[in-house]
Amino acid sequence: MNGLDVLTHPRSVALVGLPRGFKAGKVFLFGLLDQGFPGPIYPVHPEASEIEGIRAYPRIADVPDPLDMVVVMAPRESVPEILEACTVKRVRIVILYTSGYGETGDEQGRQEERRLKELAVKGGFRILGPNCMGVYSPASGLACFPGMPRTAGPVGFLSQSGSLCNLFTNMCSSRGIHFRHVVSYGNACDVDLPELVEWMAADPDVRVLCSYCEGVRDGRAMVRACQKIAGQKPLIMWKAGDTPAGRRAAASHTGSLSGEARLWRSVFNQCGMCRVEDIEEMLDHVMAFCHLPLGGKGRVAMVSGPGGPAVSAADAAERCGLQMAVLSQKTRKRLAAILPPFGTSPRNPVDVGLSASFDLRLYLETLEALAADSSVDAIVVLGGGATEELSRTYVQGLARLRKESGKAVLAVTLPGYLVDEDLLKPLYEGGVPVYSTPERALRAYAQVVRFSRFQQARGIPRTEAWSRSGNPGPSA
Amino acid sequence: MNGLDVLTHPRSVALVGLPRGFKAGKVFLFGLLDQGFPGPIYPVHPEASEIEGIRAYPRIADVPDPLDMVVVMAPRESVPEILEACTVKRVRIVILYTSGYGETGDEQGRQEERRLKELAVKGGFRILGPNCMGVYSPASGLACFPGMPRTAGPVGFLSQSGSLCNLFTNMCSSRGIHFRHVVSYGNACDVDLPELVEWMAADPDVRVLCSYCEGVRDGRAMVRACQKIAGQKPLIMWKAGDTPAGRRAAASHTGSLSGEARLWRSVFNQCGMCRVEDIEEMLDHVMAFCHLPLGGKGRVAMVSGPGGPAVSAADAAERCGLQMAVLSQKTRKRLAAILPPFGTSPRNPVDVGLSASFDLRLYLETLEALAADSSVDAIVVLGGGATEELSRTYVQGLARLRKESGKAVLAVTLPGYLVDEDLLKPLYEGGVPVYSTPERALRAYAQVVRFSRFQQARGIPRTEAWSRSGNPGPSA
Repeated sequence: MNGLDVLTHPRSVALVGLPRGFKAGKVFLFGLLDQGFPGPIYPVHPEASEIEGIRAYPRIADVPDPLDMVVVMAPRESVPEILEACTVKRVRIVILYTSGYGETGDEQGRQEERRLKELAVKGGFRILGPNCMGVYSPASGLACFPGMPRTAGPVGFLSQSGSLCNLFTNMCSSRGIHFRHVVSYGNACDVDLPELVEWMAADPDVRVLCSYCEGVRDGRAMVRACQKIAGQKPLIMWKAGDTPAGRRAAASHTGSLSGEARLWRSVFNQCGMCRVEDIEEMLDHVMAFCHLPLGGKGRVAMVSGPGGPAVSAADAAERCGLQMAVLSQKTRKRLAAILPPFGTSPRNPVDVGLSASFDLRLYLETLEALAADSSVDAIVVLGGGATEELSRTYVQGLARLRKESGKAVLAVTLPGYLVDEDLLKPLYEGGVPVYSTPERALRAYAQVVRFSRFQQARGIPRTEAWSRSGNPGPSA
Repeated sequence: MNGLDVLTHPRSVALVGLPRGFKAGKVFLFGLLDQGFPGPIYPVHPEASEIEGIRAYPRIADVPDPLDMVVVMAPRESVPEILEACTVKRVRIVILYTSGYGETGDEQGRQEERRLKELAVKGGFRILGPNCMGVYSPASGLACFPGMPRTAGPVGFLSQSGSLCNLFTNMCSSRGIHFRHVVSYGNACDVDLPELVEWMAADPDVRVLCSYCEGVRDGRAMVRACQKIAGQKPLIMWKAGDTPAGRRAAASHTGSLSGEARLWRSVFNQCGMCRVEDIEEMLDHVMAFCHLPLGGKGRVAMVSGPGGPAVSAADAAERCGLQMAVLSQKTRKRLAAILPPFGTSPRNPVDVGLSASFDLRLYLETLEALAADSSVDAIVVLGGGATEELSRTYVQGLARLRKESGKAVLAVTLPGYLVDEDLLKPLYEGGVPVYSTPERALRAYAQVVRFSRFQQARGIPRTEAWSRSGNPGPSA
């Protein structure tokens, strides 16, 4: 183990300041139990002899075995003493849930936060936080909330907001996207985003990185980290605190200095990073990077039953810097033979007409014709079957197309179609991301194309994980 | 009745070209039966003596009673003859579902489309279409698809895409938004958007107008129509065909000339219209205009359990031209007394902390304090209860706040909270629109503020319907 590996591979965990009753602080213990953390767990409590059936110890010093990780949710006043005990115990990482430091906005809070870092350096341990939720790493049995998914996957998430870790992983898991590691790092008095990015990018099991960030302490370190991973692995970044109102909010949330929006923008551009502005967009982009193959020129073929959304989607494609594929003569002839003469269009966007959701042959044969056209890199399909059974066939057809063609396939649901989440499973498992509007699908695909171009321009070889398969699925 | 009123108040309807079997064309008949159209329905079919148990007639001339509306889904070749028969029968409106005109891109199609208009002028009737789905008007028992909601509401929708009528009304109905009239007008050979806008805006039961449009034939008429309703009623417009790719797609969808994006933008600005770019945004804005009160200065207070999304939302507020409300000294004191000292923030965005979803008092008392502050126009709340029962209390609290304060209240759900659609009903019924991200809520609210300002600047009095209540609910 080196660097921050102890964050996700602690051999033992102690919990200090755990409440005895059913209170919010219990989430850490419930999280570990829920994930089946394999190492020993030591509740530390001045009075309790056991908590939730696990033997408790009055002080850290009383724990009989070596301690790698200590999670602290004790009041702020007692933190220095706890950190002293961690020094003596040769603890390697302290996860500091306790808040009331830099984010309070007063000088005392800021001073005490600086003091934390000094104690860590002196004591030979690292601090994650304060004001953070810690780590979720299902392959290691770590979690900071109960009920987090137990399946591991290829995504790494670094978040300054603790509750976002829980919200975002749950949101992703319902779309078949799973995580390798999630780290909530709060005020970042010691461990900060640049170091976390480099550490996480070095993990071969992490293919896609994403981050929610309000600010970093060392801007130059951040630029270095971004340059290092630029084109190696996609980094999807939700950077908040971009406006005066956002900066004030960031200051009272994690005490962060958000930095100049202009400087961040230039880093994003230089390093081929992918910027998002809300949680839905972050999910959209993570799905795209997990499922879609790299490479290709961003030439999109669109297939739709309803015509209106397809017209608007053609606009969106162009706005995103994608091209509507110019179909070959052969493809157009093939489409003209497949589609009814009226109420359809064999040009791109291909309008398969309203009856296609009853007669799926229209969808499926159209898709095959488009996949066979070498001028098409990606196919965006809007629709579904008119009945649940037809939708099942439709969904299987898309997954097969993705597999057999190796091309990017993006499914767009329409209100009233494919509403049952279970129906979508074969898509997620088959490497087909699903979006609620074509605009959202295209924005996300455009970023995958942008990243590919960045890679090509820099001559960076695609990593094995990427070329092996567009969707390697859960890595554990 | 005058002008286009026959569109939504026909005394009788004939359906020409109705298939006998279970085919897509049947939707018109099923739609009427489903809505319980009160007037006589006459299927016209050369051989069938009845269709779906309703007596059929071989030709229009054979129908024994006067005919107001004829829906034509016969092949293109037979259309001129049918229109001749409509002339003789003194039909008032023809809804032409038949396609294969201007949207084919060939000269013959365009020529035949021009011929349709000539026949209408000569025959003394109007044509809606071709290549359209016609009318949905639940208060009149009209529908163009089966299964459309039977509840009428305050929204009017004008759409060049037929399938969008069905998709959008269903999407809205699940959010408690209902329609007065929906008109699909396709290629618009005769009746076009400007006339439809003026006609619909004149209906006192329509409070909010929205439209999906790919292009209009007479740009100056459109500008006049928009100027006429400017500031009177909100018009939410999804204008597609803005880019070269979109324009090509529009041409093969409805044969539309999309016009210069620049010109459209200037009309939008001049007339205080509200532009959206996809179906979700259209829903977001319709919800806001249906539910939120007009007036106010756009000063937003934000309340959140998780801190991350609130920081990003503060950015979004500023980007939308809204202001984060500066809370009064009194309010801040009140909040400081309500909230726990750490892991929360009494400044705007107000962070009620993670435990608030367990201890709803934190949410509800905070909301009350904010509503009492005269520097707050709108409250955006992110959260939910930790259990279904707590969520029920939470939702009731928001609806009560909306009612008692009269201020704009916008609810933002978080992944994993308020997932059950039924839980949201009291919000829709109580005038609280619900969004999946704060960014989406703020963008929509910003447009309501913009419209209010436009009204104030022009000295347009708020219409009675608006001032009576923020949410008059279904008008029928």
